[in-house]
Amino acid sequence: MNPMQTCRSVRVLALLSVAALVACGGRNAAQAGSGGSGTDVLALMQARNLTEADVTAALKTYTPTGHLDEYYTFASGGHGGNLIVIGVPSMRILKYVGVFTPEPWQGFGYGDESGEVLAQGNRGGVELTWADMHHPALSETDGDYDGKWIFVNDKCNPRVAVVDLSDFMTKQIVSSELIASEHGATFVTPNTDYIVETSQYPAPLGGGYAPIEQWNDKYRGAMIFWHFDKVKGRIVPEESWAMELPPYVQDLADAGKKVSDGWVFCNSVDTERAYGGILEGKPPLESGATQNDMDYLHCINWRKAEALVKAGKTNTIAGMRVIPLQTMIDENILAFIPEPKSPHGVDITPDGAMLVVGGKLDTHTTVYDIPKIAGMIAAKKYVGKDPYGVPILDFKESIVGQCEIGLGPLHTVFDDKGFAYTSVFIETVVAKWSLKDLKVVQKIDTHFNIGHLVAAEGDTVSPDGKYLIAMNKWSLDRFSPVGPLLPQNFQLIDIGGEKMELLYDMPLPLGEPHYAQMVKADKIKPIDVYKPIGMNPYTEAVDVNATTAGKERIERRDDGVHVFMTSVRSHFSPDIVRVKVGDTVHLHVTNVEQARDATHGLAIGGQNINVSLEPGKHCNIKFVVKKEGVFPFYCTEFCSALHIEMAGYLLVEPK
Amino acid sequence: MNPMQTCRSVRVLALLSVAALVACGGRNAAQAGSGGSGTDVLALMQARNLTEADVTAALKTYTPTGHLDEYYTFASGGHGGNLIVIGVPSMRILKYVGVFTPEPWQGFGYGDESGEVLAQGNRGGVELTWADMHHPALSETDGDYDGKWIFVNDKCNPRVAVVDLSDFMTKQIVSSELIASEHGATFVTPNTDYIVETSQYPAPLGGGYAPIEQWNDKYRGAMIFWHFDKVKGRIVPEESWAMELPPYVQDLADAGKKVSDGWVFCNSVDTERAYGGILEGKPPLESGATQNDMDYLHCINWRKAEALVKAGKTNTIAGMRVIPLQTMIDENILAFIPEPKSPHGVDITPDGAMLVVGGKLDTHTTVYDIPKIAGMIAAKKYVGKDPYGVPILDFKESIVGQCEIGLGPLHTVFDDKGFAYTSVFIETVVAKWSLKDLKVVQKIDTHFNIGHLVAAEGDTVSPDGKYLIAMNKWSLDRFSPVGPLLPQNFQLIDIGGEKMELLYDMPLPLGEPHYAQMVKADKIKPIDVYKPIGMNPYTEAVDVNATTAGKERIERRDDGVHVFMTSVRSHFSPDIVRVKVGDTVHLHVTNVEQARDATHGLAIGGQNINVSLEPGKHCNIKFVVKKEGVFPFYCTEFCSALHIEMAGYLLVEPK
Repeated sequence: MNPMQTCRSVRVLALLSVAALVACGGRNAAQAGSGGSGTDVLALMQARNLTEADVTAALKTYTPTGHLDEYYTFASGGHGGNLIVIGVPSMRILKYVGVFTPEPWQGFGYGDESGEVLAQGNRGGVELTWADMHHPALSETDGDYDGKWIFVNDKCNPRVAVVDLSDFMTKQIVSSELIASEHGATFVTPNTDYIVETSQYPAPLGGGYAPIEQWNDKYRGAMIFWHFDKVKGRIVPEESWAMELPPYVQDLADAGKKVSDGWVFCNSVDTERAYGGILEGKPPLESGATQNDMDYLHCINWRKAEALVKAGKTNTIAGMRVIPLQTMIDENILAFIPEPKSPHGVDITPDGAMLVVGGKLDTHTTVYDIPKIAGMIAAKKYVGKDPYGVPILDFKESIVGQCEIGLGPLHTVFDDKGFAYTSVFIETVVAKWSLKDLKVVQKIDTHFNIGHLVAAEGDTVSPDGKYLIAMNKWSLDRFSPVGPLLPQNFQLIDIGGEKMELLYDMPLPLGEPHYAQMVKADKIKPIDVYKPIGMNPYTEAVDVNATTAGKERIERRDDGVHVFMTSVRSHFSPDIVRVKVGDTVHLHVTNVEQARDATHGLAIGGQNINVSLEPGKHCNIKFVVKKEGVFPFYCTEFCSALHIEMAGYLLVEPK
Repeated sequence: MNPMQTCRSVRVLALLSVAALVACGGRNAAQAGSGGSGTDVLALMQARNLTEADVTAALKTYTPTGHLDEYYTFASGGHGGNLIVIGVPSMRILKYVGVFTPEPWQGFGYGDESGEVLAQGNRGGVELTWADMHHPALSETDGDYDGKWIFVNDKCNPRVAVVDLSDFMTKQIVSSELIASEHGATFVTPNTDYIVETSQYPAPLGGGYAPIEQWNDKYRGAMIFWHFDKVKGRIVPEESWAMELPPYVQDLADAGKKVSDGWVFCNSVDTERAYGGILEGKPPLESGATQNDMDYLHCINWRKAEALVKAGKTNTIAGMRVIPLQTMIDENILAFIPEPKSPHGVDITPDGAMLVVGGKLDTHTTVYDIPKIAGMIAAKKYVGKDPYGVPILDFKESIVGQCEIGLGPLHTVFDDKGFAYTSVFIETVVAKWSLKDLKVVQKIDTHFNIGHLVAAEGDTVSPDGKYLIAMNKWSLDRFSPVGPLLPQNFQLIDIGGEKMELLYDMPLPLGEPHYAQMVKADKIKPIDVYKPIGMNPYTEAVDVNATTAGKERIERRDDGVHVFMTSVRSHFSPDIVRVKVGDTVHLHVTNVEQARDATHGLAIGGQNINVSLEPGKHCNIKFVVKKEGVFPFYCTEFCSALHIEMAGYLLVEPK
């Protein structure tokens, strides 16, 4: 701050002092700084019933016009099926990125080639138009976010999507019929070689029916390692593979890093192998699956598994190469360790040396010693086997210790000072505790029912220790009412100081986020416009059908009517398109603008079509006209003063 | 504020004074209030580069945990097709309400009866799964918002939807094939007897094809008056009617109130009747439609029109009773007044006596005198006719005057002190001007390209004069970048003082809002839970298939398998459903919870189904199982510590 700025600030404070004196005299605080030249903090505090802590929080989060946020948070949209991009500390939502659910503002799934991306996610011949997105994972280089891609999962219909952070668009969806649901996804290996997707509710591998009574024999879990090509920016299904797991309910997973690079850890519940059946006289799953005090932490040596795959020691199920469970056991690639009780989160410390498990019916976080575990596995120092023959390590031998944390610990993230932060669901707090002595140093209330939590780069090899978001599942009484379906509540917490301080309550207006990633803003470097003009975002090249000004034309070919169109403020050319009922129309539209934010939309009446044409973008749209009539088309963006006039007609003559 | 609170605040200020002294000495500001017990405004200002105005704005908008907002803003979602609910002054988005676009978090269009509501909006046999929503209108009683419903339109495929503000759910969509697009919608008459929807791009009435060269004879505009039944909370299509208008591009409309009750005013562009044809050697519409200096303000006496409809003086087109244009003329129900130039917004003052038109290629707002206009129409004091015989009033005789406002005035809202606020698109400002002398008193910059604007109850008979939102169409450089498709920017402006002050920049993460309604929070009184248990939100009665705890069952009937299911933390009952390939499954699910926020979701693998079960709600889901297999179903809400265990299986045996 230069001296002049300091002087101006001092003037504010002088005015504040005046206000203080006035207030001291017992009178109402006068407007010390009239005409907008000063700031009467006291009067504003009185008027809006703000505390000192509120003033601090306001000034730590308020982000004036044109100032940018320090961090991006990418939160899953839960059963909204989209990805939520949030600025931190302002907690303003910057974008919802359409991923598994069609979204017309972005033109995602409304006529252009984005529909082909969405169709990649169909399973078993069923068109799927939503998802239950749980865990986004940023791409990493050496265990640190590199800001290039983000991967997201679908718990309900197991799928993984690739979102390109150069243009914030979904570029690929992959799915394997190997599994019927998933949850431990997505997690990346430290250099984004693999994106891990783990099944949740056991089912016959590869689909197909088997009576549930044959659970123990016919139902299985599996973990898929989707190989990611960092040059192409796409998952390569044919270079991906999986491993068979016992029919427990596998839950969250995390990839090792640094000293634990090459390992993946995954927890499980329902090692009881209960499957409900209330009307059939059995206990509900919530009871059946919580009988045991311990479930099994899965320790998986994925690098050895990868070598096995290369050696061809796989079966192929539903087109996926799968290492059989027995091979996993025989090759000493899979080992279990007991974990208390009904575990949920499994999170590896920044140095890669420890692993924190939160048992949701436990009162501890349990800290495991990974190098020791790796050593015992190498030495086959096992103390037993599960019913499938998977070897089991001794619990006490495997752990560093436990932290008395409160009822219902779930997930843990880290800062740069050796502290861990755990969400404690039933107690509804964030607990800050030391990784040195496993003692809690502070708890802060959340409102209400915290699930996951996320800290600034808090699951990487180098956490920032700045901000933390409590991702709360309930929000009653927090926000103005909006009917029986309430938003969730993201609470921003400052973890930069000695004590955690609550900064902000943010309602989630759409979707139910589970996990998130918080990344330094300067790591995200999206493009402003598509260059050169005519770029197709899916092929990442100038489209063969891209059109330039003056070359617009309509050609009738064997496969239908091809319209080569441009958009520019404030018209489409051509603006009159004459076709006949039954024609297939191929609309090749290039937005020839290169000014940032000069986006056009193209909506066509009666055809359920709307595409988004950002500057320089080319879209190919294909549709069959089924009905005669006069159908206006127009630009859906308020792109200029004459946006109403940016319109034309699709004229469909009878045959 | 009680004395103790005052003292605490004074302490803050005392600390601030200390900080001021420290800063005066030229040193860095010390943390005057250490340990969280004080607020060091100066240090925070320095750390985050905040000005005095920023501090004021922060404290006027920051809304601490558990504090509620003063106003709701309901903004259209543009081509997102949903409705955006925003808290003011915090500018936090509270909810996206699914309206025309399926939305899975709300379960809107993903298996239950909401799909039937969406299907009401299909046109010409085409399934429409998006909309271009422009102008929401709150229901009114005596010209004031009553907080019961909000109506929204679709510009692209002309439709009107009814959103019930008791549960923030879309209850009805209506559409008429009379028109092919619309824009002047929705606007309500002062007691919500009618919801007005006006066509935009002319087309043959009732659909069907006509060559565009027959524009003058075969193409027409129309205005639809949808009758709303306030007891049932539904539009009654058979009690609705319309009027034929000349083939101009009708634009925005507003309903008269108080002294102008019974009138509707609508402006138009393209009285040139240009329709583009660039490739065919004609000028683009943006040129063709902007040749005239004046277009025609449509003055419509809807109460007289309603009487004509009751007298049967209509033709029926596409099932809609339509008053022919010639009848409108013969009965003196429609008159034109010139309006400059390429008008966009038409807004009636709170007293109902004046009407403000913004000509987007003009530098004035033009203020019309409605009682005088009504008098001249009654006296048939016309000065000419348009090519269709519609009588025209004299421009100068009809106006109060014009305000020199700047280039590109669009829309106008009002406060409680006799001021009008107009968005000026090309100049990119909000202009505050006096209705008394038509002089501008202040302009405030917006960032960037303001379209509509909305003020607290600013289009009712009693504006509040508190907040105004500039609804800006571009936002470059305002927010952290998110690729080529940028959010729009809502800028909150304080209009409570003598001068307008910018308070907040809010990115719009999804959709492109056009207009909004800002209503006092205490007018919105949604329910917390559905009562009694088993309520079907669409029939607004306990569903005949509602199930209570202990009565769960599965029945095979002639029309398929009926599953009577309940949900409660943390299980569905039944949790195992056994069917065969080809079966039609009828899932009748009742959430028997009554605790607020105890919402469950029900997702079924492989079936593209997800419903939202708020407390007490009943859903009927119908689907055909097409494929054998084992399909997990589960609760998509993180409803309890054992939410993972709230699961079951749909077991589909081969036939």
